Formats: sequence, structure tokens, C-alpha cells
Amino acid sequence: MKPLNQLTAWQAAAAIERGETTPTAVVQACLERIAERNDEIRAFVACDPELALAGARQAEALAADAPGGRPLRGIPFAAKDIFDTVDYPTEYGSPIYRGHRPVADAGCVALARHRGAVLIGKVATGEFATQTPSKAVNPLRVTHTPGGSSSGSGAAVGDYMVPVAFGTQTTGSIVRPAIYCGAVGYKPSFGLIATGGMKPLSPSQDTVGVITRDVADAAFFTMGLHGARDVMSGSVLRPRIGLCLSRQWDYTHPSTIAAIERAADTLAKAGAQVTRFWLPPEFEALEAMQLRLFAFEARQTLAQERLRNESQLSPRLQARLRGGADVGLDEYTGLLQHVAQMRARASTLFADHDVLLYPAADGEAEAGHANSGSPRYGAIWTLLHMPCVSFPLEIGPGGLPLGAQLIGAYGQDTRLLAAARFATSVLGTLPRPLD
Amino acid sequence: MKPLNQLTAWQAAAAIERGETTPTAVVQACLERIAERNDEIRAFVACDPELALAGARQAEALAADAPGGRPLRGIPFAAKDIFDTVDYPTEYGSPIYRGHRPVADAGCVALARHRGAVLIGKVATGEFATQTPSKAVNPLRVTHTPGGSSSGSGAAVGDYMVPVAFGTQTTGSIVRPAIYCGAVGYKPSFGLIATGGMKPLSPSQDTVGVITRDVADAAFFTMGLHGARDVMSGSVLRPRIGLCLSRQWDYTHPSTIAAIERAADTLAKAGAQVTRFWLPPEFEALEAMQLRLFAFEARQTLAQERLRNESQLSPRLQARLRGGADVGLDEYTGLLQHVAQMRARASTLFADHDVLLYPAADGEAEAGHANSGSPRYGAIWTLLHMPCVSFPLEIGPGGLPLGAQLIGAYGQDTRLLAAARFATSVLGTLPRPLD
Repeated sequence: MKPLNQLTAWQAAAAIERGETTPTAVVQACLERIAERNDEIRAFVACDPELALAGARQAEALAADAPGGRPLRGIPFAAKDIFDTVDYPTEYGSPIYRGHRPVADAGCVALARHRGAVLIGKVATGEFATQTPSKAVNPLRVTHTPGGSSSGSGAAVGDYMVPVAFGTQTTGSIVRPAIYCGAVGYKPSFGLIATGGMKPLSPSQDTVGVITRDVADAAFFTMGLHGARDVMSGSVLRPRIGLCLSRQWDYTHPSTIAAIERAADTLAKAGAQVTRFWLPPEFEALEAMQLRLFAFEARQTLAQERLRNESQLSPRLQARLRGGADVGLDEYTGLLQHVAQMRARASTLFADHDVLLYPAADGEAEAGHANSGSPRYGAIWTLLHMPCVSFPLEIGPGGLPLGAQLIGAYGQDTRLLAAARFATSVLGTLPRPLD
Repeated sequence: MKPLNQLTAWQAAAAIERGETTPTAVVQACLERIAERNDEIRAFVACDPELALAGARQAEALAADAPGGRPLRGIPFAAKDIFDTVDYPTEYGSPIYRGHRPVADAGCVALARHRGAVLIGKVATGEFATQTPSKAVNPLRVTHTPGGSSSGSGAAVGDYMVPVAFGTQTTGSIVRPAIYCGAVGYKPSFGLIATGGMKPLSPSQDTVGVITRDVADAAFFTMGLHGARDVMSGSVLRPRIGLCLSRQWDYTHPSTIAAIERAADTLAKAGAQVTRFWLPPEFEALEAMQLRLFAFEARQTLAQERLRNESQLSPRLQARLRGGADVGLDEYTGLLQHVAQMRARASTLFADHDVLLYPAADGEAEAGHANSGSPRYGAIWTLLHMPCVSFPLEIGPGGLPLGAQLIGAYGQDTRLLAAARFATSVLGTLPRPLD
């Protein structure tokens, strides 16, 4: 067996169920990895080994067949520090909330614990889940960004500190850090994991998801939250994949484009039906609208911080919020009307495809820590509430992962996850520099 | 001039601007009314006169022409106790949160204060904004319910304790208490007032709105949050009103039906174009779906409370959350897909109408305090994110108000408010039993 901290969540759950290991041993292995690596990686912003081990002992005491099921019994998980937790400080990536102790767990954290999972700490977030970076670094190369805003989630999972971490995406904050860190990012359909207890940013777009090390784990953990076990039954043997071209590809590095082209060829040879199509212009136009809608909502959602603690916001976030001051009510309500129509029309993109194949980042993780990479490839799909799964494709010329995302129709998460599992099994496991 | 506590917000703002009164005098008048009446009405769950007067003095110090404008300068307001506030306890209508002190104001509270409004306290909410009643009573007849879940908002505004109060609606929690208490309820298009800092219930439906004493005030305060002043310019002189029939009318008391019919006749005589139509069955079907979608989301959003503090939930809420346990992921994602389509199709309801006319409650406020009345008339429109304005029509046979709501197309709040102002000006001011 691999070192216990390298097991995926579903491998660990199976090993625990078979009596081959225990929740305490799995949690202990993760804690050792964190102790060894976190000073350098800075993925965790709070981790209390005593609390985590107490949680593991509680998980051991749970009967696997308790009412409602405990499909996640003994699985360690981390939560982006944008989610409230009762037993860890919750600082939202901002000095304004230094030492803040919420009185309740976020809904998703409470659910995960109820299903038997063990919270082992909080992981770094960009400031209020925006693009201002956290202090986390890329575990594959510490001089590089792990992406953002779910930077700690990507770094912790990519570094084998924990098999799964909650993240959030309002533009591209899950799909990008996942591939930058050699992991898998799953942003479910809007609403599938409730946002209660998450610090909101743009409530009409904020989506809770997970970063894991394989697609099966993203499904296992997310569906496990809802008490479901047999989640991969909706298999797609020969998925119809639409290689979705758009002007956003103008920003995509040639190495990423080449990797996606190669992946498309490989998938076609494995039986997928791959067709190319241009994203209709009315969908392209949503990218600019997403920025405006975001600005209007974030200015309200962060009103307390913007109006009373502005000096404690980063200059970048200050500028971004000020930049949205010209989005008026008429523009906003017009956007709402238009976007509602486009959400409904988005189903037309799936008339001939089960899933869309699309970039998830410009290229490899960027050098330095002042920026976390562009979230642009998530903007349209997040606004449209569509589920996305991102995963690495190959190692790029710079030695770091290149990746892509598959996008499903709204509510078609099972089909998307099955197609993503097909794709990642055909394309093979990424050779991991740190393995 | 009327007693200052009886001024509407826009009347008070105008009087302050003309120098005829001061924020302190207006706030003081409201505080006196609260001191006189709240022991009986129990609308306010927290009110600190010193804090409120300090806020009024701050408002006096504000220049009306400060950057961004202070259109709400000196206006007292209350917030349903489902919104976080830094200077008042926030208990969400639940003993689980007794004495809870949040570290930040909800976005809408922070915005209102920024625009110059003065928070004078927190008003009662049904348990976590559900139908379990608060202790507030109907100011028009204290033996009767004020409705729910924005019970304190309706009672405080209806009783002249404050001209405006924030409420929330996830099914029918603004439109019903407003008319039960002889006031006006405005649930804007989903998203128009951000939910940040509100305790969420069903995030895909939760909508922040206001209860006021006339339609102009609902527009004045809501648009004022966004710095806008000239909000009623989009007038509709001869609105096309669709009297929308549905099977929900089977539950509507004959007195309400008769009042709506009389109102429709009066509006037609005043120049409105009133046509009757049956709500297409696919829209009727949304009422049952709304319950299921609500249940799935509320079980997650209240996971902490349901799983760890269940004995402190009311038996009614316990039963409601348990009743949703059979809504699985497949059903939920199916609902999401369907509702997205219906949200887009809802615009077809407005091909021939500017607004729809619909009941907002079965009849007059019910006797007793064990129930808060049925929220059914809000279910479809809240699920569809459409803006609604409810208002009293006349005094019913039991001596309490009968009312109705107008419903606008998503994002067409300006048109809806203009039509509602037309309607209420034609139909006249309701004779108020307490005046």
C-alpha cells in the first residue's frame, strides 16, 4: 500500500472499511506530511493535530451503517478559510478577521463531519476568495503560484497533505489552482453544495466545490456529503466531446493548446466522438458581463469591509471594488434578465455533446507569488452555473502541469463526472514531479 | 405635519433636507413609539435608544452631498433578526444563537448605514426565517398573527415604530406579513439586494426586501441603498395588468377574491388594461417543486443546527427538515435544470402584461399565534426570482386588511414599482384601524 497520506479518499475509505487501516492512522499520516512540509508550502493556515486526532477517534467510534450512512468515515479533509468553522479561526484571507472564531460550521463542513469525515484544518484563500494571493506556494515548485483563490486547497491536495479540500469558485478559483498543483478540481452545478456559512462574494455565482487527486474522488466525496455511495454508475463509454473554441483561446499558451489537441486526438482514438465548434458570440459576450455582475454584487456583499475597513483591504481589491462603482441598478437588472435567458439557452450547447473540452488556465503555473494566474476560462461557465471538472493533461515545457476542463450541462453532474473519469483514465495518470 | 414616527421614509428624508426636522427628532419619535408599544407588540427583539440616538447624531454630521450621496440620511430603519449586525445581538429567531454577536454587519445593513440611514434595532423573525412564528403580534389586533417569517418587520412598520424594515422571503415571508399588518411588502428581483450577512436558508431562492408603509417608500429605500434618488421616473400610466388565475385561488377566501375583483374593476376604470388569464399548468407545477428544492437546500444550509442542535429546533422545523430527507441528488439536479428553463420561460407571462395581479394571502391575518398563515402565494414567484409588491386593498369582514400582490418580470423592478404606485394611488389609502 502507498503511504497513507497518498491514498485518495475513496482508497482510504475502502481500506478503513476492510479493516486494513484506521481513521487515526490516515489522519496521522496527513498530519505528519503537514508537519514536514507546511512551513514551506503554507497551504494550511490553521491545523491542530490534537483536534484532528480527536476527530479521527470519533470517526472510529462511528458505526459505518449509522442512519443516513457514513460514506466518508475517517476521511481527512480541509476547508478553504472562506468557510466558517467552530473549532478553527476563520479569517477569510483578510487581516480584518484576524483571529475570528465563528459560532457554527458552514453547512458543507457540518455535512462532511456528519458523514464521518475528519476536518484536519483550514487552508489558505485569496483575500475574500478574490485574486489577491494568499501566502501558499505551489508544491510542485515553490517559487511559483499555486493559483487562486482556492490556493491552499490546491497546494494541500497537490502536496499529499490531505486527499480532499473544499474550495469555492466565483470565476475560476477551483479549476485553475487544481491543475496548477497537479490535482483535480470539481465545481459542481450551482447549488449542489450549499453556500451557507461561506463568506459570500457574488451570491448569484458563488459555487462550493472540491479539489482532489482524481476524478473518482471528487465524485466520491461530493456525493458522499449527500449520503450517496454508488456515484459513478452513470458511465459514458463513448462520450461526445465538443472541443469548444472561443476568442479566449487567444490568451492560451501554445503549449496548452497543443496539449489539448493531443488529448482530443487520444480521446477520439479511445472511442470518444470529438467535434470542434465555435462558442456562439452571445456566449463569448458573457465574459465581460460576468465582470460587471460580479462587481455589483461584491460591492454589496463586502460593503462592511469596503466602507469601514478599506485600509485593511489590499490595494488590488480596493481597486477592483472601486472599479465596479459605475455598475448601476439598471445595468445590473438588465444583466440579470439577460443571464437568465442565457442559462436556459446553454442547454443548446449540449444538443450534440455530452461535455465540452476547454482550457482551464493560460498555461503552466506562473513564476512568483504576486499573481495567481487568470481566472478567465471559468467566467462564462460559472456565470451559467454549469458544472466543470479540471485535470492535468501533461507536463509542460516549464516542467509544471498543463491542464484542461470538461464542462457539463447544468445539473448533469453525473454525466460530466463519468466523462471526466473516462477522459482521465484514457489520458493516463500525470507523472508527478514530486512523486 | 404628522407625528414624526408616522412619516414615511421619503417624507422624513424630504423634511430633513428642508430643515423642517432632524434625524435625531425622527429617531426619537420612533423610539418613543417603540417604548410605548413594544411590550405588547414584541416587534423589536433588540433596541438600544442610546445607540440609535448616537446613529442619528452621526447622520446629522453627514453632508448630504458626500461622495456617493446620502439619500437615506437620517432615516430610521430596522433589520429582521436574520441579518448580522455588529452592535446588536443576532439570534436568527432561534435559542441556539441566544446572545450571538456577529463581527460584521450584513451587506444591506452596512449599505443602508453608509447611505445615511440609522439602524434602530432588530425585529423578530420566524425561526431561521421559516414558518415557526416569532413572539411578535399583529399591531392591528394583538390576538392575531402578524404573518411570517418577517413578522417583526411587518409589525414594526405597521405599528409606526419605524418607517422601513428589511425582511427576507424564501417562499412568502415578505408579501404576507406586510398586508397582514396593513403595510407594503417589496421583494425585489433575486440579487438586487445582496444576501451577504443574512443567515441563508435556501440560497437559490433567498431574497432580501423591505416592508414599508407605501410603494414609493419601498422604491425610495431600496434604490437609495444603491445611491439612486430619482427612482419613480419609469412611470406606467396605463399598466397592462394580467389578473392571473390558478388553482391556488382554491385556497383564497371569498372575501379576498371579491376584494381583488373589485380592485381590478377600479383599476380598469382608471385606465389600466386588465385581462384575465390562467397560469399555464407548467407554472402551477412549480409550487410543489419549490417545496422540494427548498427542503434539499435547507437541510444543507442548516446542517450544523439540524445535526448538532436538533433538540433546540422547534418540532415544526425538525419535522420540515426531516421531511426533506428523501429529496435526493438526482431529483435536486433535475429540479435545477427544470427551474432554469422555467425562469427563462417566465418572460412569456409578460408578453401581454406589464405586471400580474395575484393574491398574497388566503385572507385576513389569522387568529392566534401558533401559525403565521400560508406562504403559498409566494412560492412560484420566489422560485422564479420575480419581483413582487404586496399591499392592502381594503378592510375585510373580520376588520383586518385584505391584500394582493403585483408581480413583475425578472429585472423589471422599476416597471413593477411604477405599476404598484399607480395601483395604490387609484385604489386609495387603506383606512387604518389604528390611525
